[in-house]
Amino acid sequence: MQVIKIGVLGLGTVGSGVVRLLRDHQNKISSITGCKLEIKTIMVHDLNKKRDVDLSGIKLTNQVDDLVNDPEIKIVVEVMGTVEIAKDYVERLLNADKHIITANKDLIATYGSELTELARENGCDLFYEASVAGGIPILRTIVNSFAADRIIEVKGIVNGTTNYILTQMSQHQVSFAAALQKAQELGFAEADPTNDIEGIDAAYKMIILTYFAFGMNISLEQVKVNGITRVKLADIQQAKKLGYNIKLLGIAKLINDRVDVSVGPVLVPEDQPLAAVQNENNAVLVTGAAVGETMFYGPGAGELPTANSVLSDIIAVTKDIVLKTTGSRFNDYRRDLKQAQPIDVCYSYYFSLRVKDQPGQMLKITQAMTKANASFHLIIQTELDEDNARVVMTTHKMSEAQENQVVKALRSLDGVEVIAAYKVLPN
Amino acid sequence: MQVIKIGVLGLGTVGSGVVRLLRDHQNKISSITGCKLEIKTIMVHDLNKKRDVDLSGIKLTNQVDDLVNDPEIKIVVEVMGTVEIAKDYVERLLNADKHIITANKDLIATYGSELTELARENGCDLFYEASVAGGIPILRTIVNSFAADRIIEVKGIVNGTTNYILTQMSQHQVSFAAALQKAQELGFAEADPTNDIEGIDAAYKMIILTYFAFGMNISLEQVKVNGITRVKLADIQQAKKLGYNIKLLGIAKLINDRVDVSVGPVLVPEDQPLAAVQNENNAVLVTGAAVGETMFYGPGAGELPTANSVLSDIIAVTKDIVLKTTGSRFNDYRRDLKQAQPIDVCYSYYFSLRVKDQPGQMLKITQAMTKANASFHLIIQTELDEDNARVVMTTHKMSEAQENQVVKALRSLDGVEVIAAYKVLPN
Repeated sequence: MQVIKIGVLGLGTVGSGVVRLLRDHQNKISSITGCKLEIKTIMVHDLNKKRDVDLSGIKLTNQVDDLVNDPEIKIVVEVMGTVEIAKDYVERLLNADKHIITANKDLIATYGSELTELARENGCDLFYEASVAGGIPILRTIVNSFAADRIIEVKGIVNGTTNYILTQMSQHQVSFAAALQKAQELGFAEADPTNDIEGIDAAYKMIILTYFAFGMNISLEQVKVNGITRVKLADIQQAKKLGYNIKLLGIAKLINDRVDVSVGPVLVPEDQPLAAVQNENNAVLVTGAAVGETMFYGPGAGELPTANSVLSDIIAVTKDIVLKTTGSRFNDYRRDLKQAQPIDVCYSYYFSLRVKDQPGQMLKITQAMTKANASFHLIIQTELDEDNARVVMTTHKMSEAQENQVVKALRSLDGVEVIAAYKVLPN
Repeated sequence: MQVIKIGVLGLGTVGSGVVRLLRDHQNKISSITGCKLEIKTIMVHDLNKKRDVDLSGIKLTNQVDDLVNDPEIKIVVEVMGTVEIAKDYVERLLNADKHIITANKDLIATYGSELTELARENGCDLFYEASVAGGIPILRTIVNSFAADRIIEVKGIVNGTTNYILTQMSQHQVSFAAALQKAQELGFAEADPTNDIEGIDAAYKMIILTYFAFGMNISLEQVKVNGITRVKLADIQQAKKLGYNIKLLGIAKLINDRVDVSVGPVLVPEDQPLAAVQNENNAVLVTGAAVGETMFYGPGAGELPTANSVLSDIIAVTKDIVLKTTGSRFNDYRRDLKQAQPIDVCYSYYFSLRVKDQPGQMLKITQAMTKANASFHLIIQTELDEDNARVVMTTHKMSEAQENQVVKALRSLDGVEVIAAYKVLPN
């Protein structure tokens, strides 16, 4: 039986999972690929650190050259994280004709097209299923199963940390800060959670999903990103009363043959499948012109789910090696699309305001709305404290240009603070 | 650009959808495959029937030989239905070196392994993504993304007709007969709905899913099948009060390295994702040892969703033709597993009884349970009519052997009728 030797960069959570899974499911993998897959060398920072995974027969090194210069190693799994150093290593490995599998969304979202071309030039595969939505095989599914369809929209819960926090806030009536702390204690949020809670992690994933769904390359600057740090429990409860769950959604949408990509808190009608996705789980809803709505749900992170996605990439590379068909792009669909204009991106909105209790305030708010030609669906005013009222409005559909105008006008009003301005998905 | 000519058997709903999609998405398909795909010939029963799809440039015939003997035709799509005739045609086409794509679950569930070997001998592809769960790309996902994992269970709502009927009964408090009639009026159920409502259609799909998930071939006789024709509105309402939705579930489960496959009404806790699948939609929940629970949701039938799955198969064949890698099995995972024993298959159960109002009845029921060593979780007795009471029981976990014994004992009691004996999924 052909033996294929594998190198690994990084031995954190996912790296350990890959070692474990490859060992545990050796027989099944051999029966499918006709090959024996063996990890030969793993590059780590600290050679002396104690590891809780069986590494017998595997060489540890702190030199990437031990992988680059080893002709026996055919496939390298990059699960070390970082962007610039990982890019340097991956380039050197591709130039040494190693096939690359990475779970590094930051790397792919930033340098994906460059690395894809380098891989092609060297006849190498470059796969990265684990970079989006951990255990959900969404990228390969888009490539294989939506090839004949025209995708209209991809939207989803692609960050487990923020979904965990929002779920806890909603279910246990706790503040953002308390939910974050619990998430950190349970390991669902990192010590520095910025990338997750500010929506950056979700944005990177939406960049990759946009490339797969629409064939279009966009940069982080082109994604409108809002995090969840300013989401108030009061608004989660208010939305609930109106029949919605607030979720951090990434949305990539085709509008008049242009694409709009955003990440932010969104009101999702509670009878829609995305609204039911709880805690650290992820889900991606793909709408095709022909197929309609399909949803893919599963664990968004974690050692074994993510490692399983890495393994499915390893098996795909192995099949390509056996069939001598390596070197084709993970995603072959490319189109030159432009970004949608704010005037064409239309949603209903949920506004939540803190309004100083003084005569004429509601008139001014109404005037600000009317000036932007925006119309209410409902207005709810409640007492907030001695001096302030809470005003919640949901609107009919308006363009993002109108919404910007409304928010700007509301912010300029004396005694009015805009707490929330969230999109509302249609029922 | 290489032109690949396609033949089609059958021009019903799915056939028309294939013609339409292939025409509408010509450019995207060419950009991905590097080939131009053209339908050359379609075999139909009635050459003179009026068709509501543009057939310009396509030859209609009523002779399968016009496809078998045409060396230009490389791929044939079988969407005509039936088993024996379809098998004969597919065999002749495979022997003439045509790659086959079929949406015919009855054919694949019955003769899949035989046809797979014939395809391999002829170096041909045989794909059938559309045969299970219409628009949901579940088969290719299992092949590609669970190859490194060990699947423990596949369960799902794989029949849209029955899910539509059960959803209507639950939402509008109507009887089975009324919901079926509505489904027929709306085209969600056929004039003769037997195969759907008796669970046969779902069983065929579970046979195919079992083959993909566990590598095991089973026959229809090995699937324990119960339909929904005897499901009472009262039990749907009672289950709802207990926090469950009744769904027709197919379940294929690994138990001590043996497999149990069943189709029947099951109580699903209402906060689980499968419980939220409404109307004609399908969903398949795959549990992997590593990845945990993942769910794939989408339209289970319909012209364009099913046609989209056919098209994704056509594109897969086309890629194989270009790369000269045709002739490998759709699913390469094979294991010789046995069927699980009734003594090892354990679930909680929901029993619903019609009990003649006379002294000592509850004692006899309790005795029947105790004799089988089965224990209650709860018992609810309500008045049914002047002479009868309704007794609903949920039980702790018991084996299927015990459950059979209980049902047999209950049935033997004078004045006791067993209305329902359904599995209950754990919370």
